[in-house]
Amino acid sequence: MHSLLSEEKVFKDPIHNYVHVQDQAIWDLINTKEFQRLRRIRQLGTSYFTFHGAEHSRFSHSLGVYEITRRIISQFERQNYEDWSKEERLVTLCAALLHDVGHGPFSHSIEEAFDVHHEDWTCRILLENTEVHQVLEQVEKGFSKRVASIICKTYPNPIVVDLVTGPLDADRMDYLLRDAYYTGVHYGTFDLDRILRVLRPYKGRVVVKESGMHAVEHYLMSRYQMYWQVYFHPVTRSSELMLRLIFQRATELYRSGYRFKYFLPPLDSLFEGTLNAQQYVQLDEAFVQTMFTQWMSEEDERLAELSQRFMERKLYKYVELDEMKESYKTLLREQWERVGLDPAYDLWFDYPTDMPYDVYRSGEVPSQQHILLLDRQYELVELSKRSDIVHSISGLRRGKAYIYYPVDKLMRVRDRLSEEARQLLRLDRHVK
Amino acid sequence: MHSLLSEEKVFKDPIHNYVHVQDQAIWDLINTKEFQRLRRIRQLGTSYFTFHGAEHSRFSHSLGVYEITRRIISQFERQNYEDWSKEERLVTLCAALLHDVGHGPFSHSIEEAFDVHHEDWTCRILLENTEVHQVLEQVEKGFSKRVASIICKTYPNPIVVDLVTGPLDADRMDYLLRDAYYTGVHYGTFDLDRILRVLRPYKGRVVVKESGMHAVEHYLMSRYQMYWQVYFHPVTRSSELMLRLIFQRATELYRSGYRFKYFLPPLDSLFEGTLNAQQYVQLDEAFVQTMFTQWMSEEDERLAELSQRFMERKLYKYVELDEMKESYKTLLREQWERVGLDPAYDLWFDYPTDMPYDVYRSGEVPSQQHILLLDRQYELVELSKRSDIVHSISGLRRGKAYIYYPVDKLMRVRDRLSEEARQLLRLDRHVK
Amino acid sequence: MHSLLSEEKVFKDPIHNYVHVQDQAIWDLINTKEFQRLRRIRQLGTSYFTFHGAEHSRFSHSLGVYEITRRIISQFERQNYEDWSKEERLVTLCAALLHDVGHGPFSHSIEEAFDVHHEDWTCRILLENTEVHQVLEQVEKGFSKRVASIICKTYPNPIVVDLVTGPLDADRMDYLLRDAYYTGVHYGTFDLDRILRVLRPYKGRVVVKESGMHAVEHYLMSRYQMYWQVYFHPVTRSSELMLRLIFQRATELYRSGYRFKYFLPPLDSLFEGTLNAQQYVQLDEAFVQTMFTQWMSEEDERLAELSQRFMERKLYKYVELDEMKESYKTLLREQWERVGLDPAYDLWFDYPTDMPYDVYRSGEVPSQQHILLLDRQYELVELSKRSDIVHSISGLRRGKAYIYYPVDKLMRVRDRLSEEARQLLRLDRHVK
Amino acid sequence: MHSLLSEEKVFKDPIHNYVHVQDQAIWDLINTKEFQRLRRIRQLGTSYFTFHGAEHSRFSHSLGVYEITRRIISQFERQNYEDWSKEERLVTLCAALLHDVGHGPFSHSIEEAFDVHHEDWTCRILLENTEVHQVLEQVEKGFSKRVASIICKTYPNPIVVDLVTGPLDADRMDYLLRDAYYTGVHYGTFDLDRILRVLRPYKGRVVVKESGMHAVEHYLMSRYQMYWQVYFHPVTRSSELMLRLIFQRATELYRSGYRFKYFLPPLDSLFEGTLNAQQYVQLDEAFVQTMFTQWMSEEDERLAELSQRFMERKLYKYVELDEMKESYKTLLREQWERVGLDPAYDLWFDYPTDMPYDVYRSGEVPSQQHILLLDRQYELVELSKRSDIVHSISGLRRGKAYIYYPVDKLMRVRDRLSEEARQLLRLDRHVK
Repeated sequence: MHSLLSEEKVFKDPIHNYVHVQDQAIWDLINTKEFQRLRRIRQLGTSYFTFHGAEHSRFSHSLGVYEITRRIISQFERQNYEDWSKEERLVTLCAALLHDVGHGPFSHSIEEAFDVHHEDWTCRILLENTEVHQVLEQVEKGFSKRVASIICKTYPNPIVVDLVTGPLDADRMDYLLRDAYYTGVHYGTFDLDRILRVLRPYKGRVVVKESGMHAVEHYLMSRYQMYWQVYFHPVTRSSELMLRLIFQRATELYRSGYRFKYFLPPLDSLFEGTLNAQQYVQLDEAFVQTMFTQWMSEEDERLAELSQRFMERKLYKYVELDEMKESYKTLLREQWERVGLDPAYDLWFDYPTDMPYDVYRSGEVPSQQHILLLDRQYELVELSKRSDIVHSISGLRRGKAYIYYPVDKLMRVRDRLSEEARQLLRLDRHVK
Repeated sequence: MHSLLSEEKVFKDPIHNYVHVQDQAIWDLINTKEFQRLRRIRQLGTSYFTFHGAEHSRFSHSLGVYEITRRIISQFERQNYEDWSKEERLVTLCAALLHDVGHGPFSHSIEEAFDVHHEDWTCRILLENTEVHQVLEQVEKGFSKRVASIICKTYPNPIVVDLVTGPLDADRMDYLLRDAYYTGVHYGTFDLDRILRVLRPYKGRVVVKESGMHAVEHYLMSRYQMYWQVYFHPVTRSSELMLRLIFQRATELYRSGYRFKYFLPPLDSLFEGTLNAQQYVQLDEAFVQTMFTQWMSEEDERLAELSQRFMERKLYKYVELDEMKESYKTLLREQWERVGLDPAYDLWFDYPTDMPYDVYRSGEVPSQQHILLLDRQYELVELSKRSDIVHSISGLRRGKAYIYYPVDKLMRVRDRLSEEARQLLRLDRHVK
Repeated sequence: MHSLLSEEKVFKDPIHNYVHVQDQAIWDLINTKEFQRLRRIRQLGTSYFTFHGAEHSRFSHSLGVYEITRRIISQFERQNYEDWSKEERLVTLCAALLHDVGHGPFSHSIEEAFDVHHEDWTCRILLENTEVHQVLEQVEKGFSKRVASIICKTYPNPIVVDLVTGPLDADRMDYLLRDAYYTGVHYGTFDLDRILRVLRPYKGRVVVKESGMHAVEHYLMSRYQMYWQVYFHPVTRSSELMLRLIFQRATELYRSGYRFKYFLPPLDSLFEGTLNAQQYVQLDEAFVQTMFTQWMSEEDERLAELSQRFMERKLYKYVELDEMKESYKTLLREQWERVGLDPAYDLWFDYPTDMPYDVYRSGEVPSQQHILLLDRQYELVELSKRSDIVHSISGLRRGKAYIYYPVDKLMRVRDRLSEEARQLLRLDRHVK
Repeated sequence: MHSLLSEEKVFKDPIHNYVHVQDQAIWDLINTKEFQRLRRIRQLGTSYFTFHGAEHSRFSHSLGVYEITRRIISQFERQNYEDWSKEERLVTLCAALLHDVGHGPFSHSIEEAFDVHHEDWTCRILLENTEVHQVLEQVEKGFSKRVASIICKTYPNPIVVDLVTGPLDADRMDYLLRDAYYTGVHYGTFDLDRILRVLRPYKGRVVVKESGMHAVEHYLMSRYQMYWQVYFHPVTRSSELMLRLIFQRATELYRSGYRFKYFLPPLDSLFEGTLNAQQYVQLDEAFVQTMFTQWMSEEDERLAELSQRFMERKLYKYVELDEMKESYKTLLREQWERVGLDPAYDLWFDYPTDMPYDVYRSGEVPSQQHILLLDRQYELVELSKRSDIVHSISGLRRGKAYIYYPVDKLMRVRDRLSEEARQLLRLDRHVK
């Protein structure tokens, strides 16, 4: 049963000033243990090692996504757009609020290490026996499935899916603004109010009135800058590498029957791949950090070393290269082995361009990933056809590559490395 | 040996835009494990339960205090004030950076529960065998003691002490601005640049040129507002109460020989009161939260319940009263016992006015706690003698009092409470 | 006939981000010549001499007052407050938009010099044969009178009057925020969204829900600071003095039959006191400045000198005194005459406390000037009864006094002044 | 003789917080009548018709350019860059402060109408008998010529010229930030502090350390957006058209011997082209607006009509076209004549791409217009060679074209226009 709160409640928020809650179901969802857990998952993972201000959580971000969605829908309803159905309001708001509820601690690294996907866990938390599930089913039977189907993009109304996971969705809008605010960089700031004004539902998509084109250009530029300035920052990449190596080592040890001095539940289920939703939500960043602090006293030296590197921010250093050649890799692996370093742990090659890079790119056939403009003749045009600047940056790729390595160890064996290797790693600049 | 970095380094900061590091010693201190640990201590303790944006750490704040101090000193040196000695620069900067390094997890609550003081721990971390200690002693032998004496206010030069812990110190200036920024409230914003411009060392104090009086008034108003809007917010007080009750219960259990299912080092040393500095820095908020998550499965029901309340934000509710009467306390304790609740755990009376309330108050004899104006005739005048508005609010006390209790439990026994108790607690407004 | 625009129109605004126009009548009013003229009347008169950023006009401010009023009403209607009648919406918005339309160039000074009142001219512009009048009468016959009666506070519904000219009206809220933004001072910033949320119409007043008390306290503190930091700044007062002296001299000359070399219409009607509304709106700050520029070449030396002082910012200097004594005045007038200066033009005594000082003051009987809180028991309480800080500053008066004089002229006769006069004027600090 | 002020003076500024003045010469220049006159010249000309907040003056902007230059130089001196000579400090600051002192009222339009150039007038004001000239010559004989030669780019030290008029000069940095602030648009905001940190003098240019590349990218994107969103806004272009037509008409009338009812000095010298510097500085926007207000009562109907359009913002409307064809022009001119409209006054074709478009463009040979990066190997590289995004937008041109016309007049003859003309002008959308 859908009911309204007797009085609107608000959360003070630095980005949106206030987050407004009007529905009992939204209020109850925020108060579930699974949603409260998001306070212990940082929005930007390990970015706080690079930008110390970036200590905000997915809890704050999720409230923000909800609030932006609420404002868009409220605008749609004020304008009486016929492509928008008021029936969709609550289910959309719930999906917006919960879209990140399945994120694990330091998501990106843990997902790679254990081959899990936060979207899957989001759906499991919605559908299995959790407080979130109970609140949703109280709205009406089967409601949790409806919400979950928006998140996995199988929901029948594509406008709703677009709002939550489209190219101009509330998720991206909130995180760009919020990450810019907390890191203190100026790059991610764009005119949210303007964009909200020019969005409208039209023929199964959330499109942009042509008069708002420049605001969208500005938003895409902000995104481009944030990716390269913040999200792909090499120091952050290095800290993510530490995480992955710790998880890799711990898994190896677990599988080999190593007896951990420190090992709390539900770590075993994580290693076994048998976590259920109740156990999953026990995993948070406090847990991971506490394990690592304890592991600094483990007998396995590699695990202890890596845990210490992460906890005390003694990260691997990097060199930036214009391109990555296979010969570099061969050279360094060979050299590493020669001086007694382990290429599996002491060396990493990174090409951030290989990562899913979602800055807007134009294409032949406009897909769900493309932004559409609604022009004065009520025709839909793919954005890069009208915007010179978006056209110019469509498909841009950066060619940078990076080599990461523990500089402290390298310096000890520096003299035994070949001249070529030393130059490639620019080891000389570390000498006083 | 004091040396400069070959190139100035900066940290991007949302409050000060950039934090500038020029000294090798400062850079090395930031990279110690003890300082990096401050990333896992929140600046505002449990305030994030009330203001979700307030997730910033003492690491960020400590950098900010350092930066403000650096700017003040740089201003002093640019003006060639004769009361300032350039010899004091580095020792002052180190004290500013490290003044909070001894804060424990959720400091205020843990300090009350275990009767420890973060100032003491700060000094121990400076003076015992730590990375911080080593860096300081590398500057020159005995340097760690000099820094520590600033923090415990025994340093011979009172101007240096004033900068780090005076009524207009860098600590307060940074936290007001930073807490306002992260919570999103506007109250704490004042004109930092203006205040920095009007400070000057004079006859053993850091005083304010009279032309800057209004900026200082504005700063004091901001402080007043932040105290009542943010720092003493009853929801935050309630979450601190949860913490204290958990620590109280765990100590009771430990002393009574209870066998904890989950118990990590160095908890035993904490309970025994035998922590050394190395162990102390293992305590952080990740550790505390992880313990509480595990304790939700302890057999002791009270410990499990309280841990859950804290982790899932099922806090005690409160009623606000214009004054607290002894008869209220007697009444409620009696009622509590009658219905089977434990007044030691299920009831709390709070009067935030009893807390150290550091909004400026005028006094007979200007002390170190008073702000002094330097007027055009080069005479020092205590601020409230010149400022009508500061005079007006000097010594203001708020009379509010609060009763905290677990509303869920109360509602179950509601019908067995006396009419008087029900009214006092306003239990009726919780009935649907 | 009241009609809506086919599409909402917006103005980009630095304070409110967007000003939204939905009604044809509002759009048409903005496009009248009388309203467009407000672009040539500065919001802060001569304050730009002190704060160079303060170059904003009453046009911008009037749009802001309209927008805040629109948001308050929209909030009232969303909450379905029964004390608010939807019939009042348009008439209130028109009054909010037009409340300043009668301001003359450098209003305060010109009003004193010619004994006119901008409220009177606002009403005349609404009621005489103007474009504004025509637009209003197109809404419905007699509408211009309804709007005018709000501005002169004779409108039957006091809630409407309160919105436009009450102690928490949209006018004050906009100007504090806007003046703070354009001057660059931080003092005037308060939480507008919060205040808008806690206002509600109740028993013939616009009152504040008790939960919003602190936001109102903060707003009153902002106001207090802005008065003393910006509005009463002695440099601004000095420039206003120049204006008044110019008008005084020109009137004297006009009455004495002096033949002006430069004299544009409708100056004669201004001097004669026979201006009609059509002529009045020809008077703007461009006109006044152009006259003064021309008058710098008038034969009357005093008029030429004063015009030059104003146009080239060669203002009188001032000394600040703790109190003004009659003996000072006697002394200086006497001395002035002795050295050949004219006390009527070359000397001015100022006590800004004598000015209407509208920072909130508590009183015996709550009047329209008092802010009322609506407490949880739905009782109205005058603000200072609940707020310690408002109580403290109620009725605060500053005792400062100022003497203004042309320092360049004084320095020439410095040696002929008595020692006492020289000391009083602190003439020595002007000597190199 | 160069001397320092006994105490640093500051101006409160919304963009830079404080503008700091340390030199007597700078202080004296600010107080000259020629510099004070810049208060009556708007920074953005007629943009206030489009963005009502844009009411700021060239006075504010000039202080800002001075302040940025001061900070850059102060950074250069702190870093002890050997390519920077301390001798250049004062002359550079004077040039930065004065670079716009020759701007006339609504510069762009008046320059086109009368074929004058503000740079020429800047130099005349520096070199002829003015207060500015006197202050400069007091520094040392011939100093005014040195300052003037920076502005006309003949100064021997190219680094100084680069600071004042290079591709990353203080002028552009201030106006982008300031115009963004006053209009309220977000587009022009970039990280000034970061850019100031990465600038350095090197081999005769002001270049950018490679680590600052992204900040410069962001600055160029901001510039691109500001041009299209603010500076070339079609409503602003329309108001500039009004200005040009008024000047065109008045000149025609003057040359034809028309007897103006209203005509103030030094208009005649302006029309004759015989203005001297003293007369030139009498021309300000107050003067122009006052003339126009008076001309609304001139007998010449065209002059009266155009003056009214400008003063009351009854601007020409426009249609936007994807391209401008010669056939459109022929068609409309013909139609205009057929219905009795004057193509010389009632019709205008505009292609903003034809205007000098100074967004950065890469070229074969790096010139003074190119931004150079200083890479880690101390080699200079032209920016677009390293920055993909700058490379992408280099040489971008927008193809938009506009037709401007008086829609009120057109609607009266609408039925007599050909179907083709009506469609081209989209006249139908103006019909209710």
